[in-house]
Amino acid sequence: MANIGTGDVADAFARGTVWLVGAGPGDPDLLTRKAERLLATADIVFHDALVGPAILELAPQAEWVSVGKRSGRHSKDQGTIDQLLVRAALSGQRVVRLKGGDPSIFGRSMEELTALREAGVPVQVCPGITAASATAASAGLSLSLRGIARRVQFVTAHSRRGAAVDLDWQALADPDATLAIYMGREAASEVSRELIAAGLPGRTPVLIACNVSLPDEKLLRTRLDLLPLATRSFAADLPTLILVGQAVGADCSPMPENVTSALSSSAIN
Amino acid sequence: MANIGTGDVADAFARGTVWLVGAGPGDPDLLTRKAERLLATADIVFHDALVGPAILELAPQAEWVSVGKRSGRHSKDQGTIDQLLVRAALSGQRVVRLKGGDPSIFGRSMEELTALREAGVPVQVCPGITAASATAASAGLSLSLRGIARRVQFVTAHSRRGAAVDLDWQALADPDATLAIYMGREAASEVSRELIAAGLPGRTPVLIACNVSLPDEKLLRTRLDLLPLATRSFAADLPTLILVGQAVGADCSPMPENVTSALSSSAIN
Repeated sequence: MANIGTGDVADAFARGTVWLVGAGPGDPDLLTRKAERLLATADIVFHDALVGPAILELAPQAEWVSVGKRSGRHSKDQGTIDQLLVRAALSGQRVVRLKGGDPSIFGRSMEELTALREAGVPVQVCPGITAASATAASAGLSLSLRGIARRVQFVTAHSRRGAAVDLDWQALADPDATLAIYMGREAASEVSRELIAAGLPGRTPVLIACNVSLPDEKLLRTRLDLLPLATRSFAADLPTLILVGQAVGADCSPMPENVTSALSSSAIN
Repeated sequence: MANIGTGDVADAFARGTVWLVGAGPGDPDLLTRKAERLLATADIVFHDALVGPAILELAPQAEWVSVGKRSGRHSKDQGTIDQLLVRAALSGQRVVRLKGGDPSIFGRSMEELTALREAGVPVQVCPGITAASATAASAGLSLSLRGIARRVQFVTAHSRRGAAVDLDWQALADPDATLAIYMGREAASEVSRELIAAGLPGRTPVLIACNVSLPDEKLLRTRLDLLPLATRSFAADLPTLILVGQAVGADCSPMPENVTSALSSSAIN
């Protein structure tokens, strides 16, 4: 598994192999240089619904196949995606599987890695910027904070529609940690209620982020007890990250102008 | 705080402003395209000791200043770094502060953000690939794993030399989570002892990673009870990440050839 140095991707990206590539949060400039080169070399790219057209332009030579997965809607099931990847590789193509964010953080990459390995297809992974890092950057804050947020934890609140979110709320309700909840929009009421029940103060700072790094990025600062109300202004089918913790409320005056604030219920209504 | 689109960094990177930029784990190809453009436009770059020469080559036009911080050795204290950044910006330079990994994850970025804002200097953040994502990619595994690792948590085990590491071991010893310990080399014995005392089985899979993404990258799979023994083969002054959890031991046969394995004490000695 050789590292890819500058300029030799075409050599390193052998025919009949697969790269799982993190596309980052959406802005094509937040892809890594390595991802850019892999895309420019690929014969075929299988991509998520969350990967936008500006990124697809980085591989004009490749065939593009949407295997679009979104919260609540799966256009292709995992087994079908696995088969498509294996078949493309076995036919001798250079295959990129492009995933939103970082493949190793809620990217369901292990299923595809396992299927490819079982089929004898060489597969490697190129990391991506995960949404929590991109959100912190856009909001001009840090996820960790000395003496205040010593632990940073990531969970996904995605569940089958209607089902309760099965999380260890006690472990998550840590006043000395920053919590990043991926796909948190639908579970916002439950997140607020359960974290407060587990001991986090209602005034704990929260940042809701949607379409981070894209031109229509939306960042809203609020409080944990106002989270259900505040999420109403966010579209249900867009990727939404919720950050919870004291680090999110660290004084960053003057507040970056791209962050709006709703610290009372009247400010939301 | 405008987003930087392709090609217009020179416009967006105004004189007298600062960008805090994540350099990623070390491989220059794992910088983002945005970081690459910011470096190519900067007048001056203040960088950590962990940022290597191959990355410095991306900004041949800039003045480079090492403000090298490493575990146990601080060549410049934080207040001095803050002053250098403020002074460079106020003199009208385009300033990049280049940090290893992602600025928002154990990058101590809030101190610098606050100092710059207090001085009236516009500052923005460009995210980077954090070591945990890069390690998962190199080892060909996923940090999250459906039904097995539903939570991913990051802590730093760095402490003043000789002091005990002040962490909530009970919260960290979660068999359903993946734990990433940054700067974990020195605290390896304590990590192993405390996590086992808090209930994690000694056979819990562990991956030790050093110099991830660089040509001399070293990845070693072991078990939690063998962690102290296994870390002896890692140099004390190199950046070392320790991953703990079932997801780290997920079957990825054939194992990537860059990962060595030490699953018994005889294999280590």
